[in-house]
Amino acid sequence: MIINGTHVANIKLDNLIHRISKLKIKGIIPKLGILLIGDNMDSIMYINMKQKKCIEYGIDVKVVHFPVDVNQEDIISIINDMNNNNTIHGILIQLPLPTNLNTHFIINSIHPSKDVDGLTYTSIGKISHNVDSYISSTSRGCIELLEYYKLLPYNEEFKVVIIGDSIHIGIPLSILFMKRGYNVQVCNKYTKNIKYITKEADLLLTACGVPHLIESDWIQSNCILVDIGINKKGSNIVGDIDYDNVYNKCRAITPVPGGIGPMTIAILLTQLVESSERYYRSTISNL
Amino acid sequence: MIINGTHVANIKLDNLIHRISKLKIKGIIPKLGILLIGDNMDSIMYINMKQKKCIEYGIDVKVVHFPVDVNQEDIISIINDMNNNNTIHGILIQLPLPTNLNTHFIINSIHPSKDVDGLTYTSIGKISHNVDSYISSTSRGCIELLEYYKLLPYNEEFKVVIIGDSIHIGIPLSILFMKRGYNVQVCNKYTKNIKYITKEADLLLTACGVPHLIESDWIQSNCILVDIGINKKGSNIVGDIDYDNVYNKCRAITPVPGGIGPMTIAILLTQLVESSERYYRSTISNL
Repeated sequence: MIINGTHVANIKLDNLIHRISKLKIKGIIPKLGILLIGDNMDSIMYINMKQKKCIEYGIDVKVVHFPVDVNQEDIISIINDMNNNNTIHGILIQLPLPTNLNTHFIINSIHPSKDVDGLTYTSIGKISHNVDSYISSTSRGCIELLEYYKLLPYNEEFKVVIIGDSIHIGIPLSILFMKRGYNVQVCNKYTKNIKYITKEADLLLTACGVPHLIESDWIQSNCILVDIGINKKGSNIVGDIDYDNVYNKCRAITPVPGGIGPMTIAILLTQLVESSERYYRSTISNL
Repeated sequence: MIINGTHVANIKLDNLIHRISKLKIKGIIPKLGILLIGDNMDSIMYINMKQKKCIEYGIDVKVVHFPVDVNQEDIISIINDMNNNNTIHGILIQLPLPTNLNTHFIINSIHPSKDVDGLTYTSIGKISHNVDSYISSTSRGCIELLEYYKLLPYNEEFKVVIIGDSIHIGIPLSILFMKRGYNVQVCNKYTKNIKYITKEADLLLTACGVPHLIESDWIQSNCILVDIGINKKGSNIVGDIDYDNVYNKCRAITPVPGGIGPMTIAILLTQLVESSERYYRSTISNL
């Protein structure tokens, strides 16, 4: 079975339409601040995709594009302006940043109430505590996509394997599954004998950035596959999983493109709308 | 081999002596604020142990003991006083709290700069980002104890299994191992076929609170065992691992008592001294 991320993302986005309309009636236009630093072509492409989707759904966007040699203080100053600007409801910093910048410091300059991409210390800490929070868009996208297809029943024998331990995907994803009580194994592309680990997975999520790493002899029959990789192979974009090779063996799989990518954007917009609604409620309670 | 937590904890504590003396010469007496709520006998015992160790090493302690039916606002008010009190360098809330209180909210009322037990959103988020932070005392205690015995070489085949997914042990411990690049599997006492999982571990850490759950047929020869469980069995305190049963099979094991318990206290005092030193440096830089 193909897990159609585009389809589910569109349903999630369409559910936002009336919420955005209601906000606009109350005088609030949801607005996302985006910081783009340098000229990484992939980053520019991702920003364009996010911006286009925002505009399509009536969400305002302010993109600030810095040159690669920008001073960190200038970035922090813009983030502070956005933190203090009531017309901006969420702030996104496109990663990765140039290596001369302190990524942790910059991300954590975002006020937690505007961290719609769920990457600050506060957001990660909150999901560890299992309290309501913004969540890494990609991680929440994986969970909501699987929930939509009813592929996440709680089962004490169900084994989740995650390849990748990054701060924006592997770590939050593993915490989300742990907090749901699942048996979770996290490894990375350097783990030895990784094929024996993936073969035991009932649900395998990959975010290791190795094109077509996973083939049919890496998985058990009936495994559910979530491919978070976005890799270039010649002129194509491919995932970490060799889709054609595994398709007949697995129970379900997310394609690349058309799987987790659209879900990531849909969740980003959802969290922005949630932030805008929270802001509206705060203005009411202050009256 | 017995991993002697008492021995290593004493080394760590003795290393604090001259640091505490240096602070006192500069007019700073490290001081820990402790909040105890209700009359749970275990909590009272733990607090007494921590308080005794502080006093032994010349650290001041202020214990505030609330009745079980205290108002949450009264607790928050005391935490705020301690946050604003420059003579208090760390705040510890003994868990678990009575169920009518919001544990997350209370813990996160501690200012991150005084979170010497490493449980706030900020501390958990920082360890996820792999930046310097206070760390859950028990989790850091496990890591430092293993490092002392050189039982944590990085090895791509080395498999870490953790039983338990609590906010103060399982979650931070798993993040620490993930950020070090290990292959980490987290399960809990409800996970089915758990014996097959533990049998693959090169390092098994247990914090599930089931007395003597793990016996010799649960582990492979040469496994390293870290027992974080503290359970009552008759009039004895025992761990999650059946020590006598596994001793001849494993490579190394922490006893209960005398393993992780003393390390937890040593790390708490270490983090309090670190906080006091940081406070001293901040007073210097403000001159």
